[in-house]
Amino acid sequence: MDSSPSKLNAVAAADVAHFAGLGIEVEDAGSGQLGARYNVDMLGRYAGDASVAVFPASTAQVSQVLAYCNERRIGVVVQGGNTGVPGGAVARRGEVLLSLRAMSSVREVDPVAGVLVADAGCVLADLDAHVQQFGFIVPLDLASRARCMIGGNVSTNAGGLRYLRYGSMHGNVLGLEAVLPDGRILDALSTPKKDAAGYDVKQLFIGAEGSLGVVTAVAIALAPRPRATQLAVLGLRDFASVQRAFVQARHALGETLSAFEFWERRCGELVVEHMGHPSPLAAAHEYAVLVETRGAVERHDAEKMDAFLAALRADGLVAEAQVLRAPDAVAAAWRFRSDMAAAHARSGCMHVYDFSLPPRHQAALRDATRRHLAALGLYGAADSLVTDVTVFGHIGDDNIHLQIVAREFGGAIEDVVEPWLYEWVGGHGGSVAAEHGLGAHKAPFLRYAKSPVVIDTMKALKRLLDPRGIMGPARHICQA
Amino acid sequence: MDSSPSKLNAVAAADVAHFAGLGIEVEDAGSGQLGARYNVDMLGRYAGDASVAVFPASTAQVSQVLAYCNERRIGVVVQGGNTGVPGGAVARRGEVLLSLRAMSSVREVDPVAGVLVADAGCVLADLDAHVQQFGFIVPLDLASRARCMIGGNVSTNAGGLRYLRYGSMHGNVLGLEAVLPDGRILDALSTPKKDAAGYDVKQLFIGAEGSLGVVTAVAIALAPRPRATQLAVLGLRDFASVQRAFVQARHALGETLSAFEFWERRCGELVVEHMGHPSPLAAAHEYAVLVETRGAVERHDAEKMDAFLAALRADGLVAEAQVLRAPDAVAAAWRFRSDMAAAHARSGCMHVYDFSLPPRHQAALRDATRRHLAALGLYGAADSLVTDVTVFGHIGDDNIHLQIVAREFGGAIEDVVEPWLYEWVGGHGGSVAAEHGLGAHKAPFLRYAKSPVVIDTMKALKRLLDPRGIMGPARHICQA
Repeated sequence: MDSSPSKLNAVAAADVAHFAGLGIEVEDAGSGQLGARYNVDMLGRYAGDASVAVFPASTAQVSQVLAYCNERRIGVVVQGGNTGVPGGAVARRGEVLLSLRAMSSVREVDPVAGVLVADAGCVLADLDAHVQQFGFIVPLDLASRARCMIGGNVSTNAGGLRYLRYGSMHGNVLGLEAVLPDGRILDALSTPKKDAAGYDVKQLFIGAEGSLGVVTAVAIALAPRPRATQLAVLGLRDFASVQRAFVQARHALGETLSAFEFWERRCGELVVEHMGHPSPLAAAHEYAVLVETRGAVERHDAEKMDAFLAALRADGLVAEAQVLRAPDAVAAAWRFRSDMAAAHARSGCMHVYDFSLPPRHQAALRDATRRHLAALGLYGAADSLVTDVTVFGHIGDDNIHLQIVAREFGGAIEDVVEPWLYEWVGGHGGSVAAEHGLGAHKAPFLRYAKSPVVIDTMKALKRLLDPRGIMGPARHICQA
Repeated sequence: MDSSPSKLNAVAAADVAHFAGLGIEVEDAGSGQLGARYNVDMLGRYAGDASVAVFPASTAQVSQVLAYCNERRIGVVVQGGNTGVPGGAVARRGEVLLSLRAMSSVREVDPVAGVLVADAGCVLADLDAHVQQFGFIVPLDLASRARCMIGGNVSTNAGGLRYLRYGSMHGNVLGLEAVLPDGRILDALSTPKKDAAGYDVKQLFIGAEGSLGVVTAVAIALAPRPRATQLAVLGLRDFASVQRAFVQARHALGETLSAFEFWERRCGELVVEHMGHPSPLAAAHEYAVLVETRGAVERHDAEKMDAFLAALRADGLVAEAQVLRAPDAVAAAWRFRSDMAAAHARSGCMHVYDFSLPPRHQAALRDATRRHLAALGLYGAADSLVTDVTVFGHIGDDNIHLQIVAREFGGAIEDVVEPWLYEWVGGHGGSVAAEHGLGAHKAPFLRYAKSPVVIDTMKALKRLLDPRGIMGPARHICQA
């Protein structure tokens, strides 16, 4: 592809002077590198090598930067809150780092339509706090809410905690403004909910991870702020029961259901052992489930939850069920769930995989992985290299986390499960990137879950909109 | 553009023989034209001129047809249930009409994930009936439900009656299969809800109206079938009250709100006068509103509705409010709303416009139109050419219908309101096509609501995916 980074030019002192001359804020490390704030990702797994960061304060300035870089064939990496997981927001070949940090104004709230228009650099938690006065929430919530920016949320097609209830960015983003690689401003910042006037061009930028241009502003449909939240914790004996409970929850809790999370027994044991949190359940069960509702009237939600649990008990589906209504207990149960990955990491060398997969295959993925590793002599004996293979995740979002904990990191495990895992997931109707995007390294595995024609079309779109390949080189679809 | 129909070849007898030789069902009117079923749109406004229709029974056959037509540069128009409004599904230059009628199988229902995979030619009402056994609905409902097909729903980005609750096709379509103009099969028929693996290529086909290829199958996220429905009818004194009532409804009815429709007094009078339906309200009010809820527990919904209405009364927002729970009364109130366009048409020569517009501008559009016409001496006097200018629509979806009823049809009215109306709507953040698409004639008005860069990008996408311009020539974005 044209986007080969070898065709790109390194950023030079004259370029920095040009940006500064335009009145654009620049941070320049000269012949050295910028600090960790811009060069190291949140999880510390990707070390970038940018020496120059620009902080445009307006869409016009973003346009000036891109037009210049496109003309000079200088690579650009876009960074929002730098909370991405797969390394998509740090420089890899000395590209100019374009930060949206200086574009952080709320442009408009329409309290009747329930629409927010905001600069890409607004922090998610700040936006959610801002719309609270109008009785709304931003229909997206992530663990990184206090740092991640709305432009990055849109650019990475962020999923988050209550996707089951509020749906995807593809439905909630009503419009956006983006600067194309050649500097043209694509103003698709419309706010009406229904719009069937031609191709929905903005959709291309949702999940493009900065590879087609820079998202500079976003219009989002807000959701009414719920007045009540409750959480139930269930203990179940097998994965079939988990799936049946989910189906019953959707119908009995209906419009109030906002999250449905599960973990297997071993995950809970690791949290108790390594994080010191008490289990929210009195006994040990093969599977545990968190069911959350959010609604307009607390008493109605409580009655629905009670009826749902009574039906589960009558069907013999749950061995234990507790409804948590005290804020402390709710927070503790969510913390138990949130610390699951950390508990695995403390128990050994954790190799974690994040996939989309239809619910019926979620436990089977774990079983198949165990068999695969056992057949290779890597799992199942007291001294096996792999000590644990576990699953937990979001049934309602078709999103699963698979952990392989071993006595050592790296090749010995990765070589035998990659691409085997991607192939298994693709073969069972899943996706190799559920909510964290392709970033710096996942594109080579796209072919296990996307057909050649789909990948060819992605590449053609990249060539069409970024013919010189300046946006996010050496990553994302460029590597497929 | 390359897609100029002048470069296309007419379909000939040898082409028909080729299709038949492939085992594809063909209807051939020889040198004449096919009948009204395929050549006239549902509303009888567009007369097509196709002489050949093909009815592929599989994705492979669709691929054979397109590959052949692309090679021979023969134009193709795609038709589902032929219920489109702006004439996008009938032939205009003797193109081959490709009907999805013979592709009507349900491929899969996942009752746990709540996902339906179906051929494009499945009728919407049939799909909804099919998924009822699993406790789900298709999250889309249209007046044409008994004839329209799911492939057409997706291809036109259909909105429908409960968009406010269930959202857009861009959020609900999880995957699709399409045949590209050159015959390649784009298999993007994945079903997981979260997917952040590269560009979401399928989004391009949602709303493309058959201009980028043929959608042959669709995967859709289903919604739980509600167990209770109720309807309230409100009388209000001004449009500000309508907007305030909508805001209160979103917060008080929360997750149960499924529709919020309004009409002005004159619309109701026309329905009473010309359709003979009794008004659902006892007195006359400047504005009337229908509020619908759908939920899991009838008593909870009733309590929420009662509390909502009590609050409206306490705030002095409603002059009259009635809750309808008897099925007959609910059906009658919906019929009163549904027959509004027909009532206008019976009262004179109706010119109807369907726009997206933020709620705060919806009544202002009507007022501005009245002033515009009055300034030209066309409205406001007893003998004016225009007898009524009215609005009704869907506040919750930002979707409004503007009716201009005159003593005669055509030019005298259209010449003074077009493009004036499109310009007004575009200037107030609206869209010139809310849910009916561009079809045969709306693309020239795109420029009033979409920026030049957006339109240029649409045209570039068309050239990229259909370089020979065989798909739906002389319509849609080709005309922008």
